[in-house]
Amino acid sequence: MKITVIGGGSSYTPELLEGIIKQQHALDISEIWLVDVPEGQKKLSIIANLAARMMEKADCPIKITATLDRREAIKGASYVITQIRVGQLEMRRNDEYISIKHGVIGQETTGAGGFMKALRTIPVLLDICRDIEELAPDAWLLNFTNPAGLVTEAILKHSSVKVIGLCNNPINYYKRFSRTYNTAIENISITFVGINHLIWITELHVNGKSRIEDILTGISDSYEAKNIPSLGWDPAFLQSLEAIPCGYHKYYYQTDRLLKQQQSQYQQNETRADQVQQVEKELFELYQDPNLNDKPRALEQRGGAYYSEAAVRLMTSLQLNTKHIHTLNVPNNGTISCLPDDACIEVNCVVESHQVTPLQVGSVPPQIRGLLQVVQAYEELTVEAAVTGNKGTALQALTLHPLIPSSERAQVILDEMLEVNKRYLPQFYSESQEVNQ
Amino acid sequence: MKITVIGGGSSYTPELLEGIIKQQHALDISEIWLVDVPEGQKKLSIIANLAARMMEKADCPIKITATLDRREAIKGASYVITQIRVGQLEMRRNDEYISIKHGVIGQETTGAGGFMKALRTIPVLLDICRDIEELAPDAWLLNFTNPAGLVTEAILKHSSVKVIGLCNNPINYYKRFSRTYNTAIENISITFVGINHLIWITELHVNGKSRIEDILTGISDSYEAKNIPSLGWDPAFLQSLEAIPCGYHKYYYQTDRLLKQQQSQYQQNETRADQVQQVEKELFELYQDPNLNDKPRALEQRGGAYYSEAAVRLMTSLQLNTKHIHTLNVPNNGTISCLPDDACIEVNCVVESHQVTPLQVGSVPPQIRGLLQVVQAYEELTVEAAVTGNKGTALQALTLHPLIPSSERAQVILDEMLEVNKRYLPQFYSESQEVNQ
Amino acid sequence: MKITVIGGGSSYTPELLEGIIKQQHALDISEIWLVDVPEGQKKLSIIANLAARMMEKADCPIKITATLDRREAIKGASYVITQIRVGQLEMRRNDEYISIKHGVIGQETTGAGGFMKALRTIPVLLDICRDIEELAPDAWLLNFTNPAGLVTEAILKHSSVKVIGLCNNPINYYKRFSRTYNTAIENISITFVGINHLIWITELHVNGKSRIEDILTGISDSYEAKNIPSLGWDPAFLQSLEAIPCGYHKYYYQTDRLLKQQQSQYQQNETRADQVQQVEKELFELYQDPNLNDKPRALEQRGGAYYSEAAVRLMTSLQLNTKHIHTLNVPNNGTISCLPDDACIEVNCVVESHQVTPLQVGSVPPQIRGLLQVVQAYEELTVEAAVTGNKGTALQALTLHPLIPSSERAQVILDEMLEVNKRYLPQFYSESQEVNQ
Amino acid sequence: MKITVIGGGSSYTPELLEGIIKQQHALDISEIWLVDVPEGQKKLSIIANLAARMMEKADCPIKITATLDRREAIKGASYVITQIRVGQLEMRRNDEYISIKHGVIGQETTGAGGFMKALRTIPVLLDICRDIEELAPDAWLLNFTNPAGLVTEAILKHSSVKVIGLCNNPINYYKRFSRTYNTAIENISITFVGINHLIWITELHVNGKSRIEDILTGISDSYEAKNIPSLGWDPAFLQSLEAIPCGYHKYYYQTDRLLKQQQSQYQQNETRADQVQQVEKELFELYQDPNLNDKPRALEQRGGAYYSEAAVRLMTSLQLNTKHIHTLNVPNNGTISCLPDDACIEVNCVVESHQVTPLQVGSVPPQIRGLLQVVQAYEELTVEAAVTGNKGTALQALTLHPLIPSSERAQVILDEMLEVNKRYLPQFYSESQEVNQ
Repeated sequence: MKITVIGGGSSYTPELLEGIIKQQHALDISEIWLVDVPEGQKKLSIIANLAARMMEKADCPIKITATLDRREAIKGASYVITQIRVGQLEMRRNDEYISIKHGVIGQETTGAGGFMKALRTIPVLLDICRDIEELAPDAWLLNFTNPAGLVTEAILKHSSVKVIGLCNNPINYYKRFSRTYNTAIENISITFVGINHLIWITELHVNGKSRIEDILTGISDSYEAKNIPSLGWDPAFLQSLEAIPCGYHKYYYQTDRLLKQQQSQYQQNETRADQVQQVEKELFELYQDPNLNDKPRALEQRGGAYYSEAAVRLMTSLQLNTKHIHTLNVPNNGTISCLPDDACIEVNCVVESHQVTPLQVGSVPPQIRGLLQVVQAYEELTVEAAVTGNKGTALQALTLHPLIPSSERAQVILDEMLEVNKRYLPQFYSESQEVNQ
Repeated sequence: MKITVIGGGSSYTPELLEGIIKQQHALDISEIWLVDVPEGQKKLSIIANLAARMMEKADCPIKITATLDRREAIKGASYVITQIRVGQLEMRRNDEYISIKHGVIGQETTGAGGFMKALRTIPVLLDICRDIEELAPDAWLLNFTNPAGLVTEAILKHSSVKVIGLCNNPINYYKRFSRTYNTAIENISITFVGINHLIWITELHVNGKSRIEDILTGISDSYEAKNIPSLGWDPAFLQSLEAIPCGYHKYYYQTDRLLKQQQSQYQQNETRADQVQQVEKELFELYQDPNLNDKPRALEQRGGAYYSEAAVRLMTSLQLNTKHIHTLNVPNNGTISCLPDDACIEVNCVVESHQVTPLQVGSVPPQIRGLLQVVQAYEELTVEAAVTGNKGTALQALTLHPLIPSSERAQVILDEMLEVNKRYLPQFYSESQEVNQ
Repeated sequence: MKITVIGGGSSYTPELLEGIIKQQHALDISEIWLVDVPEGQKKLSIIANLAARMMEKADCPIKITATLDRREAIKGASYVITQIRVGQLEMRRNDEYISIKHGVIGQETTGAGGFMKALRTIPVLLDICRDIEELAPDAWLLNFTNPAGLVTEAILKHSSVKVIGLCNNPINYYKRFSRTYNTAIENISITFVGINHLIWITELHVNGKSRIEDILTGISDSYEAKNIPSLGWDPAFLQSLEAIPCGYHKYYYQTDRLLKQQQSQYQQNETRADQVQQVEKELFELYQDPNLNDKPRALEQRGGAYYSEAAVRLMTSLQLNTKHIHTLNVPNNGTISCLPDDACIEVNCVVESHQVTPLQVGSVPPQIRGLLQVVQAYEELTVEAAVTGNKGTALQALTLHPLIPSSERAQVILDEMLEVNKRYLPQFYSESQEVNQ
Repeated sequence: MKITVIGGGSSYTPELLEGIIKQQHALDISEIWLVDVPEGQKKLSIIANLAARMMEKADCPIKITATLDRREAIKGASYVITQIRVGQLEMRRNDEYISIKHGVIGQETTGAGGFMKALRTIPVLLDICRDIEELAPDAWLLNFTNPAGLVTEAILKHSSVKVIGLCNNPINYYKRFSRTYNTAIENISITFVGINHLIWITELHVNGKSRIEDILTGISDSYEAKNIPSLGWDPAFLQSLEAIPCGYHKYYYQTDRLLKQQQSQYQQNETRADQVQQVEKELFELYQDPNLNDKPRALEQRGGAYYSEAAVRLMTSLQLNTKHIHTLNVPNNGTISCLPDDACIEVNCVVESHQVTPLQVGSVPPQIRGLLQVVQAYEELTVEAAVTGNKGTALQALTLHPLIPSSERAQVILDEMLEVNKRYLPQFYSESQEVNQ
């Protein structure tokens, strides 16, 4: 069995490898191909060397291959994992700075930042899917590439690849509540409702007893992601919400405070992108150390905690037909009644070897429904804009986003972002488009 | 046939009377009862006297009765028209000032202002409905009271009264395009989609030919309401929207500019409420003139143009079973697929004596759908909060509104508004509520 | 303005001509083209001569042209009316006889008979639509060809022609209740719910008063079609149905008695097809009389009463943009909540020059819903079978029909019908099909 | 932990006991209460004695209590299992004989027979639920009482009891395919779609490979229930159905042959009810044997194979929070898009201690949809008739059923059945009903 990691030079890769090593017997993998773009060749080489050292230390017979030849890497793979960053951290930094400059939240996956990342990323992922359709049509594509919901929706709508979108957010809740209630993950039941990076927990049971009130009343804390500032939640707000918001909800519910914080970081050239650039730099320095032969602890500061565990657990379920429940990005098809059938949602699913089936959600209360619907409509338009390169569709998408206060602000931000990202956006700058618009 | 006007002391009443006089033969009305609250007694008396002079001049035999006895006025009525303002202009002024003070749009029917007006107004309207259920169960209730969509939805959900919500917005579009294309209103076909004060025109036909592109490309102007500042629309935005927005859409699409304008008015104590107070004062001075015996021109500055025409046309259709098309606020029941069945929508309807039936809309494009759904969910929560007096529900409603940037801002505004409106909000301040929350 | 009648040699044509003559000034028609197939040339010629005499008598300047050249006839038409019978009455007779022989209702539009007629007819109509798309793309196609619902659904799904399906059933109810209540049609309001030849009346108002109980309790009779035997309705059944069934419902609700009657007619070679053949023969003898210059009374026995009135009223509404209500076959798009969006339904619609918009129906009670849904699913499969020529799809369609007691009976009837209709079913007998099935 | 079996005197009870004995350690049951009605006292006593012998032989410490005091038995139970037969086998015999006499299928759960059983049974089950609500509000009610779908829907709509409807049909398919493919049940994945006794298998995977074509093409046989005659399926029919029908589908698809068979049995006084009466008699003779101390083999002829396994597996999942998949009768809530939210469906569900969640199905193909919808509408009306005792609703229900050819036949059957069942139908014969109807 062959696994292909696209974006193999990512600083996250050692985490993934560690997870695979732990499950090597269950998964029975013979080879892992790490593939990257020429700009990432140096990093890829560092990671490939570390990977070899990790395998050796673990006495694990999996063969590691690093390559820039994507087609060769995909050929015959059973699983393709995508974790790329089109335009690297430099473009992420632009996303954040342009957003904050114009007075709106600048964030990697949410708001104007996530929107721009989607426009850059979706065409590349669809291009990868063309290769998978041809060279590994039976492969499962596990997409971690952010914004994971938007990217997965684009693939579901515009490709025949068997794709599953994956995020480390849900597993972190299981881990968190497992610690809080001092019980195994298997005894925790969480009902997630929403779309990627906008999921609410509407039910929490521990050993069959409802415990959500513990969190809503503030008796226990919920999970706090490393990459999102923690400002705390007002119990009165949580109780009227009747659900636990996820970390990304802070950008919607605590916008004022987060924006102020971002504006201050912006003035000091210290946004999240800057922090991540620094962390990445340090990580790769560590990775180069020929004595390092396992995942360094420092990686856990990076924000993707348990990401590898989510991936390896999912592959294990697919491989062994376990029928276990995972929280995944899949097509809606009526699961959440108030969203279109072809929306990509993030909900609990039963995983079998041949299919992934969501558990029915049905209707959701209005305080969740309204925000969910408007962000989903924004995503639908963003996917369309990313595929067609239509500037009008892009304008409508950004205008609709709750973090953008007006169509006029949307227009200004859009114009600047398109200009700065020009070389990553052939779909917006081809000749035919110029005529059509 | 008896018509009862609740809020009969309103400055709009002469417009309504003028309309009724014109259609007196078709409608065959024998008496009009004008009813108001004690605080409005003086205005009521002025209006009643003017009404009598108007009838006399028009040689119209309709008997005018002014009273503070609402039950007596409602008893046996065929039509009840509600045009009240709970808390008078003073509370409207508070709505606007508190909103702007906290950095959000302050407007009578939209955003925080409309929200607060709904909390004050819905219980009073439901109280009126209790009287109608008992004393005039066959009467049609024509509700003009703003926010007309929210108020009508509350009545649809919590009363058995035959209610129709009415706004002068749609008729103004007919009038406008009739002038633009120099043709009778009958030759204009407009497809409206949305909810009150948030309607889009998705199709415009003049004599069977589609003309919407004229407006989207800016060749012709759309209708501009007197009570909303006109900032113009960018044709590129309109074309990507693929629909004509209504005047109130400016608060959503041109928020930055409108907010700046409002903040400047706020600093000069010159918001719309202040203007209206001044206009009202002047109007009542005019109305007192014993020589005045018809509707003064100055009333047309007031913002409710053609409001009486909408009302009188609707009553004529109901009375004569004309099966004509009117744009009305009615229960959704699947008309707009993406909204709940019990939402109150504003769409074209066929009016018969015994029923009002919406014309099917079906699905709407995502750029309309997203905004429509989130505002509808806000309205659903606002109606619930107004009826139950639950502060948590009120917080969630306001948080959801696209013009409120965060739940924290919502909380601050809500707290101040509830305090200032205390005497109008028994449902929020009764003992049982305090226990429950 | 040019009107084209496909199937111009039909015995119904004089009725249509009479209607057009009456409305000649409103409609402003310059020419009528009557077109037919070679087998119908003799009849066409008789009708064309009668048409000329009728025009002359009425002093009507409309030019009549009879032709076998369908493309020439369609070219530039404003309205195309289709009233064809593929396989003529001989095949209809087969439909009835094969059905009854196998112990099921044999009827022109319902059950196995209507199913077989659909398989023969849909490909021919789609062929006509290809011509209209090319030669008269702006024309309205008014389809009277039975089974009108199935044929219209096929056109809606497989052609871009602006089609409206039309039946004389609804107008007959208006006529009937107009006589019963001695009032003008304009004062009658009927809510129709369903699909062609399976419509229920769920509300009946006369001058704004509900009168449906009159019919449900048997105080007044409903309309009885000439072409369906009248067995009377049990008031207890009607009251629990809470709706007035249409004539064709007898085949579903009074199956036993109707089948017994048909079996007796079958044994005497006297089914409805036989009767119609006799009526047709007599009519054409009448039509040949050079002294005849208007529609003969005998035509009224034929079953299509007020069919021309329905057509001429509809053309008048389209032409004059009257916004009047007509009961038409149109795409569902959410009008009846329990049916798919792309189902063809028969409901009240507002007719404008440029569009036909259904009035919202929403949900229907279970006793209507169940039968409506199963017959609609049958129709969906029948349209698919007619277009693809897939025998398996045809088997599933017929199996699903409530008048067919088992899949085994469906198989026997289907085999015999396909064989007998072989020359009309190229889609089932082409080489590629034989391979595929 | 206390388990209460209502209808404990049923001949099936030994099977259930055997299953519980096998899982005694996992389930940790302390006592089983067997409760029955006075008419069943003798059987109850036989069963209780056999139960005691079985426990003794298995060295199982569970205490067996037999009682006629239902309330005492329910008090404090953790699980209540209902397996009653209102009117005993005598009334079942009437159901079959009256049906066949009037020319329609006579069957225990389908058609007129199942309809009548529902009218008798639903009020009794709702009465039991009143007791559970009061005396064991946290208990799970596992309902095996037929018609299980109708009874469960009635409880879901008219009670707050935590009910799960259970049938042995699904588990038999797992067992069957496990044998066919010589693999453990865990490796079989079956997608069931439908309602109780009307489920289709739309997907079958064995070890992750799709094998449904094996069954559709007739290479392998599907499961054949002991209590339904096997006539074989035509592969051409199965392939166009694109799904595996369940045993009860024969009554719908092979009606002619099954009816002929039933009519022949009827003439010889040898219908299924007669056979079951004979089997029961023999079983109870066996059960009385003081030497018998386990479930006799003869019970396997009775038709309820693996019924106890389904029950015990479900209790184990609930008790141990296994999150395993079971095929259960639960409320729809959007799981099957084409059915109402409050319909009771039979689909795969994930079972946790605190809740049972269906796996999303979405849309179904028209050949399944049509039959499913009409039978569901029949069930909705039947539940309503059983609760209200309204004869009109009952008439509409029976008329709608696909196995009843006309409303007139429905009326005749209904009248006779109501008369014969008079003493079991207080809801139809109370004074208030007589006035209302």
